Amino acid sequence: MRGIAYGGDYNPEQWPEETRREDLRLMREAGVNLVNVGIFGWVLMEPAPGAYEFGWLDEIVDRLHASGVQVGLGTPTAAPPAWFSRLYPSSLPVTREGHRIGVGGRESACPSSPEYREATAGLAAALAEHYAGHPALALWHVHNEYGAPLGECYCDNSVEAFRRWLRRTYQDLPALNDAWGTTFWGQRYTAWEEIDAPRANHTVVNPAQRLDFMRFTSDEHLDCFRLQRDILRRLTPSVPVTTNFMTTNCKSMDYWAWAREVDVVSNDHYLTAERPDNHIDLAMSADLARSLAGGPWMLMEHSTGAVSWQPRNIAKRPGEMRRNSLAHVARGSDSVLYFQWRASRFGAEKFHSAMVPQAGADSGVWRDVVGLGVDLARLGGVRGGRVRAEVAIAWDWQSWWALELEWRPSVDLAYRERVDAYYQALWRSHVTVDFVHPAADLSGYRLVVAPSLYLLTEAGAKNLRRYVEAGGHLFVSYFSGIVDEHDAVHAGPYPGALRDVLGLSVEEFHPLRENETVPLTPGRDLAGRVWSERVRPAGARVLWRFAAGPDAGHPAFTRHDLGAGAAWYLATGVADPRPALAEALDAAGVERPRDLPETLEVVRRAGHLFLINHADEPVTVPGVTGSGVLDGAEYAGAATVPAGGVTVIRERRPDRGPRRSRPEPGPRAG
Amino acid sequence: MRGIAYGGDYNPEQWPEETRREDLRLMREAGVNLVNVGIFGWVLMEPAPGAYEFGWLDEIVDRLHASGVQVGLGTPTAAPPAWFSRLYPSSLPVTREGHRIGVGGRESACPSSPEYREATAGLAAALAEHYAGHPALALWHVHNEYGAPLGECYCDNSVEAFRRWLRRTYQDLPALNDAWGTTFWGQRYTAWEEIDAPRANHTVVNPAQRLDFMRFTSDEHLDCFRLQRDILRRLTPSVPVTTNFMTTNCKSMDYWAWAREVDVVSNDHYLTAERPDNHIDLAMSADLARSLAGGPWMLMEHSTGAVSWQPRNIAKRPGEMRRNSLAHVARGSDSVLYFQWRASRFGAEKFHSAMVPQAGADSGVWRDVVGLGVDLARLGGVRGGRVRAEVAIAWDWQSWWALELEWRPSVDLAYRERVDAYYQALWRSHVTVDFVHPAADLSGYRLVVAPSLYLLTEAGAKNLRRYVEAGGHLFVSYFSGIVDEHDAVHAGPYPGALRDVLGLSVEEFHPLRENETVPLTPGRDLAGRVWSERVRPAGARVLWRFAAGPDAGHPAFTRHDLGAGAAWYLATGVADPRPALAEALDAAGVERPRDLPETLEVVRRAGHLFLINHADEPVTVPGVTGSGVLDGAEYAGAATVPAGGVTVIRERRPDRGPRRSRPEPGPRAG
Amino acid sequence: MRGIAYGGDYNPEQWPEETRREDLRLMREAGVNLVNVGIFGWVLMEPAPGAYEFGWLDEIVDRLHASGVQVGLGTPTAAPPAWFSRLYPSSLPVTREGHRIGVGGRESACPSSPEYREATAGLAAALAEHYAGHPALALWHVHNEYGAPLGECYCDNSVEAFRRWLRRTYQDLPALNDAWGTTFWGQRYTAWEEIDAPRANHTVVNPAQRLDFMRFTSDEHLDCFRLQRDILRRLTPSVPVTTNFMTTNCKSMDYWAWAREVDVVSNDHYLTAERPDNHIDLAMSADLARSLAGGPWMLMEHSTGAVSWQPRNIAKRPGEMRRNSLAHVARGSDSVLYFQWRASRFGAEKFHSAMVPQAGADSGVWRDVVGLGVDLARLGGVRGGRVRAEVAIAWDWQSWWALELEWRPSVDLAYRERVDAYYQALWRSHVTVDFVHPAADLSGYRLVVAPSLYLLTEAGAKNLRRYVEAGGHLFVSYFSGIVDEHDAVHAGPYPGALRDVLGLSVEEFHPLRENETVPLTPGRDLAGRVWSERVRPAGARVLWRFAAGPDAGHPAFTRHDLGAGAAWYLATGVADPRPALAEALDAAGVERPRDLPETLEVVRRAGHLFLINHADEPVTVPGVTGSGVLDGAEYAGAATVPAGGVTVIRERRPDRGPRRSRPEPGPRAG
Repeated sequence: MRGIAYGGDYNPEQWPEETRREDLRLMREAGVNLVNVGIFGWVLMEPAPGAYEFGWLDEIVDRLHASGVQVGLGTPTAAPPAWFSRLYPSSLPVTREGHRIGVGGRESACPSSPEYREATAGLAAALAEHYAGHPALALWHVHNEYGAPLGECYCDNSVEAFRRWLRRTYQDLPALNDAWGTTFWGQRYTAWEEIDAPRANHTVVNPAQRLDFMRFTSDEHLDCFRLQRDILRRLTPSVPVTTNFMTTNCKSMDYWAWAREVDVVSNDHYLTAERPDNHIDLAMSADLARSLAGGPWMLMEHSTGAVSWQPRNIAKRPGEMRRNSLAHVARGSDSVLYFQWRASRFGAEKFHSAMVPQAGADSGVWRDVVGLGVDLARLGGVRGGRVRAEVAIAWDWQSWWALELEWRPSVDLAYRERVDAYYQALWRSHVTVDFVHPAADLSGYRLVVAPSLYLLTEAGAKNLRRYVEAGGHLFVSYFSGIVDEHDAVHAGPYPGALRDVLGLSVEEFHPLRENETVPLTPGRDLAGRVWSERVRPAGARVLWRFAAGPDAGHPAFTRHDLGAGAAWYLATGVADPRPALAEALDAAGVERPRDLPETLEVVRRAGHLFLINHADEPVTVPGVTGSGVLDGAEYAGAATVPAGGVTVIRERRPDRGPRRSRPEPGPRAG
Repeated sequence: MRGIAYGGDYNPEQWPEETRREDLRLMREAGVNLVNVGIFGWVLMEPAPGAYEFGWLDEIVDRLHASGVQVGLGTPTAAPPAWFSRLYPSSLPVTREGHRIGVGGRESACPSSPEYREATAGLAAALAEHYAGHPALALWHVHNEYGAPLGECYCDNSVEAFRRWLRRTYQDLPALNDAWGTTFWGQRYTAWEEIDAPRANHTVVNPAQRLDFMRFTSDEHLDCFRLQRDILRRLTPSVPVTTNFMTTNCKSMDYWAWAREVDVVSNDHYLTAERPDNHIDLAMSADLARSLAGGPWMLMEHSTGAVSWQPRNIAKRPGEMRRNSLAHVARGSDSVLYFQWRASRFGAEKFHSAMVPQAGADSGVWRDVVGLGVDLARLGGVRGGRVRAEVAIAWDWQSWWALELEWRPSVDLAYRERVDAYYQALWRSHVTVDFVHPAADLSGYRLVVAPSLYLLTEAGAKNLRRYVEAGGHLFVSYFSGIVDEHDAVHAGPYPGALRDVLGLSVEEFHPLRENETVPLTPGRDLAGRVWSERVRPAGARVLWRFAAGPDAGHPAFTRHDLGAGAAWYLATGVADPRPALAEALDAAGVERPRDLPETLEVVRRAGHLFLINHADEPVTVPGVTGSGVLDGAEYAGAATVPAGGVTVIRERRPDRGPRRSRPEPGPRAG
Repeated sequence: MRGIAYGGDYNPEQWPEETRREDLRLMREAGVNLVNVGIFGWVLMEPAPGAYEFGWLDEIVDRLHASGVQVGLGTPTAAPPAWFSRLYPSSLPVTREGHRIGVGGRESACPSSPEYREATAGLAAALAEHYAGHPALALWHVHNEYGAPLGECYCDNSVEAFRRWLRRTYQDLPALNDAWGTTFWGQRYTAWEEIDAPRANHTVVNPAQRLDFMRFTSDEHLDCFRLQRDILRRLTPSVPVTTNFMTTNCKSMDYWAWAREVDVVSNDHYLTAERPDNHIDLAMSADLARSLAGGPWMLMEHSTGAVSWQPRNIAKRPGEMRRNSLAHVARGSDSVLYFQWRASRFGAEKFHSAMVPQAGADSGVWRDVVGLGVDLARLGGVRGGRVRAEVAIAWDWQSWWALELEWRPSVDLAYRERVDAYYQALWRSHVTVDFVHPAADLSGYRLVVAPSLYLLTEAGAKNLRRYVEAGGHLFVSYFSGIVDEHDAVHAGPYPGALRDVLGLSVEEFHPLRENETVPLTPGRDLAGRVWSERVRPAGARVLWRFAAGPDAGHPAFTRHDLGAGAAWYLATGVADPRPALAEALDAAGVERPRDLPETLEVVRRAGHLFLINHADEPVTVPGVTGSGVLDGAEYAGAATVPAGGVTVIRERRPDRGPRRSRPEPGPRAG
């Protein structure tokens, strides 16, 4: 495939011949070159156990090929047929409260069901044997959105599999008892068979048990993926295998582990329609996809307009779809794909938008789809291109899981709340960020930000310390480094894993009341929320203090110079962390434009400068020189991006404007 | 029975002999002439399987007869005995989540339980054989409030019965697969036995499956009713059979189907006590009861004061009970019955008001009950009389069901919200309305209003078109005519079933944010809520436009002249639709008083003008000439209705005031 | 044991040898003299069925003894081992909805499980045999917080036990049918086996059935306690047996019954951290513990700082722990114990505060713990001393249960809301109160207050009448005396059980709307909330009237002189009942200080005057003469209590200041 892939999920089985012919014509009109088919086609491919039928699909794939459209072929294992559920009722998932789920939805099989795994392996093999060598086959799209709607399952198969997972993980029971802290509340296990899934209880269940069940759940789904992937790789070695992630929005899958297993990372993203500035959430999802991929990735699903599963499914405003799609490309995607090509007339998602809406081709949405096809054809040059970031945010699903277990110091502690606050601050500062696992190689970054990194292993802590000592800047938000991988508090005063690198300890947590704020000094218009705590410096310098509240007069923001770098600590939840972050960005020598409105999105990819204007007024960007890729204009020194518009410039002097001033170097340089 | 029936549910089995004697004395004092007995008496009538005992009931019925009180005899099938549940545990209902309900409440048997059906048939037969020919027996009151608290049941008996219902409905599986759109999410069925009730799922269940399960549920309860009714009709052919509806408040029963099966429609109504202007909700319930009946009906239950099952059970204010009761009579009821004669000392409803309250006969409530008995004796002349309406509201339980399934464009879409808004606007305009099924004969109405008529069949759509072409006026609110009977979107742009009659299409829905409003032009003090959409006229004239929001400048309110009539469309949710409705009312030539306060209820029944003053100040109504039925006064040209009072006038010139001005005729006359 | 016991729950099994050695050293430093061990140690004591191992515990107990620390030995029956649940899966509790609870929490066995009872008896016997005569053994701490998290259980064992309980209670079925009012809704039982636990239903379950199931639940847990207690008493007759209550915070256990069964009442109390003035709630919990004990009691658990199970676990402010602990002592506690000695590193409660926090001994918390140890050593003289009250609040768990069943006149009726309002008013008036059961001997009190005493038996009503006739003052809040022990309305107008003593009846309840208020006359700045009603005096004098609302012009506050006493009635929910209470306090001749700030807590115990200043400013208390116990100062005529401080004075003239003025005597004296 050349250029940016353009298209979406395609369900011709829902339509009569006449519509299917129109589909091909419209795909050509829009420049569609890739569609995903068969994603929910299990019962059509295997209408009875072991009796495979691919004739209907052959016709579709052949026609698409003849029409110049490549195919992502779905392994439809997210849609077990009703006959399967009837034949193997024990395959139906069970909720934490003990309800067995019924049929009529989707993802109606437990990943630990042996019959389910066997059936998926058989189907994947049959599909791969049948389509091996087909010229249209560009990609395997395994399953669909592992982790949603089915994450944890509490059926008997799951309990058995959980025990096997625990045996593999801990080898012997004393190790498990130790890891789970079963001396607390007298929970010691004396036989593997005593261990259950952490099902509903009248009180809080052992947090280490819950954490391991979350790990098990992610692993169990991943095993299902690997089972299919290995078959597909064996039978069609040249076709890449992926499964669509939901990077920032799927809490239940540890995508750092998953990313190692796919041939290409692909991602689904949907705006939270009622949320203001949801384009920043989009950017975050894209940056996390790129970080998981370690390079280019595929946008597998997004929407042309409204979705159908939110409380109020707000449609996109004029230009919003184009800004959304091009932001994904700017941040590393080599594809712009949608759920869905054509809106369904029936079923649960008929009010979900599509490239061809219910109103048909005589519609603004369709005209925008055609226009975007033209844009993407012009952007083929960025395919495969990389995005470079000087700043990274430490992100860890396992810390997310642990942080949001029950009985924490405050219900206002929430992983995404803090990560979002810091990401948004960086976005509005025009700083492009990567996401990194805390134990990963950080040497390429000037600054690493760790918001709410509650769970931090010894290895992670050492990695962060080495990074700082070698000259890195580490910015840590409160309630980080508190527990180890088993949700056990690190020995000694908080934050056990970060005391030494931060040069301080925390004597006591002082969670704030609902909506309470505490002012901070010196004299900034700043107030902390959610959190206050008693910081006791041990090497760190105090930059700001609490001006009131339970820690009035005590440190709120500190800096600890360590080796060639520095570690910063902000002990409360400011709504906008930019004033604090700016100090660290400057000290770390992170360049960024200083005088652009915060509504302008600025990203560079492979020599292309993407300027996406989310405001209702045009903005002029100084220091821009190059060729407009979408508009064919030449820019020498400045570019005016129209209200709501997107300008992409192949820069001639890629290291110049938008004007960036590198501040005075921090201790790194000293 | 002559005159208005007056009385209530009577449970003498809860009281000692002394109280039962006082009951008869008090009934005489109040003019009570009908009570319902035995409604929860199963275990007393059949204390062991097949062993019927009616002696205790004979004594009650005989005494009532001797006292001049007629009897509505309950078939107590809403109260299966505990011995029945123990003998047939599989008869206990199961929730959607899979819990089996316990005993200790009521309605504790699934309507699909064969043992339950057999037991109810046996009991009905025994009762009818025993009481056939008893002179007190005036009515069979079958069961109690079918549909609440038990609507859907998910037990094995229900699943079996659902499959039988589907086989009868669809004949073959391909037809079912087509109707349910099972190509979506790969849900195709290959055997009837694969089909389950739409039990709880981790995602949205097929909406057509849920819709059919709702139809099945209503039908299954109706089958239970018919089973008893046929036995009662056979054994006591001259005694009418009814079961009490809860017209506007029971979503789960399709009363259009039920109304065809009862000998007389009866209705229960309770105020939502904390809701302002809940007397308008009362009027709506009564109008729907009359519409279901096609004429006079019976008010089977209402209350003298507070109920006991709402969050705050506000008592009625002075005069409110009288206004409530007489409003039901004005709107077609031939009875004024209460739950309950005497307040229970124990059980779940002991704080529910009664004709004889806990305070006894030395109470304001009892004095009001006696006073109302005098009023009703004077109103005997309206018995059997009809109420005529020029305006109808299209009402369809199946559309209600479909509209409120999951994953709609906005959670703010709610059936009752829009129907209530339009009903209230008409009530405040002093316009009496009928309710009609969209496929019924509409020829008698000048205007038909269709609020949120989301589901509309092809037949319904044709019926509406014929109505307009023949000179009718049709007023349609947004999100109507969207899907067919299987919740499948009608082909082409929205609203598929109504595009031609409305002369427009809708390109895209633009649901508004929570509490968002959009102003409308021209220059009225109007704002839309909940909904905006892109209307593209195709024949319709634009009357108003959106002045802001996602459809600024585009049509909001249109009129399409078609044949001899016209179709109006309002594309957003105005809080008070009167300004828009007035245009249609005027064009349709609907007469109504122009200068009366909106708090005055004005209804005519059989030559009687009911004036019910819900305000705290008296109101003088011009153009009234006739005899005061309640007060014996003569009115010549005007009547002053006291604050909170009710005046009923037998009109001498029934077609005159309250002054009505018929506006300039609309296109109908042209 | 001499002096005040000081210490907490101690879990050395969670720590290595080095930490356990430090524990002993720190205990000495703080003056700790009692710790509770083994509370969750079942699986350590009995790692396999019947195989007891106490060696690990011997070492701990011996060391503590050697270190001068006495031991409360836990019978760890709140922590059934996982092997027990695996061996007897039917012992796992079942929720009202039918879910069986899993393992991994605590209290995972149903109290009606025969295997559970047998196992607990065996374990208690083994423990007692082993430790009989051990010099460190000071107390048996049976189980832990019966009633939470496990109250009701709906398993088959529970249903069987419930039927046995009912047979014992009612002897024959007609008595049960009568008590439960099963003529309502046709619920009559014809065999004991038909009776079920009141499991989840689609409507309201018989309230008398629910009430009896609540009684059964309390009794069933109490039986479990007695089973162990009898064994312990037999084997170690000199060691007192207790189990820790949660007096004001455990709705499910009827502690009046429990208090009769323990050798010493012990209590756990935790602040509701976000609630303002939560020290008043603390005082209430302590007063109820003292009232249950009829004298001194033990504070078994409270916290040095934040807990971990509330939404926002606010830490204690400086001085708050000391004020809290000393308030318990002032109100009768002979111990100051904490959950927990040392904060756990793992498990559900690791963020719960402790005497040794995560930060270790170099912390403010530890320094406060040491300081408090010094205080307590000085307070040894109050041990065993009594607190005398002239005012009592009638408190009845069974009335609480009944009041908060479903389908009451208003959801705003809540037991604790009204009791708290009256308790707070008395606290702020510096009046010490006892709690009493309504049927208990009241002769020692000048005033008894009955807030929301909805359920009142005939015997209770007679007791209150006798009390008033003999000269007592009874102050009753609305919705009291409504039903008997089976939740049946007392015969005649409301409030059936109190009409005669109050000299009035209530014709109709008029619950107010949400947030609605009604002003009261004469001319006070008072407004009623939640409730209004139509009071009809029959002997009572009207003191205040409703100035608006549904009962405008009718009585709101009345006084009825009866015999030598008087009964007062306030018919609405004033936020602060002090103005009404003051009239009754004065009439009853209750002395209290008149000119102290309401933030100063004033309690006398055994000749010691405790002055606890909850304000941020010092307060000077006149009329104080004696020796400062904590500060060694001498006070002659006045004492100044520092901001946030506590002053304890051994009074020389115990009946003098803080200045109390006894008002003119009420009718009692006349």
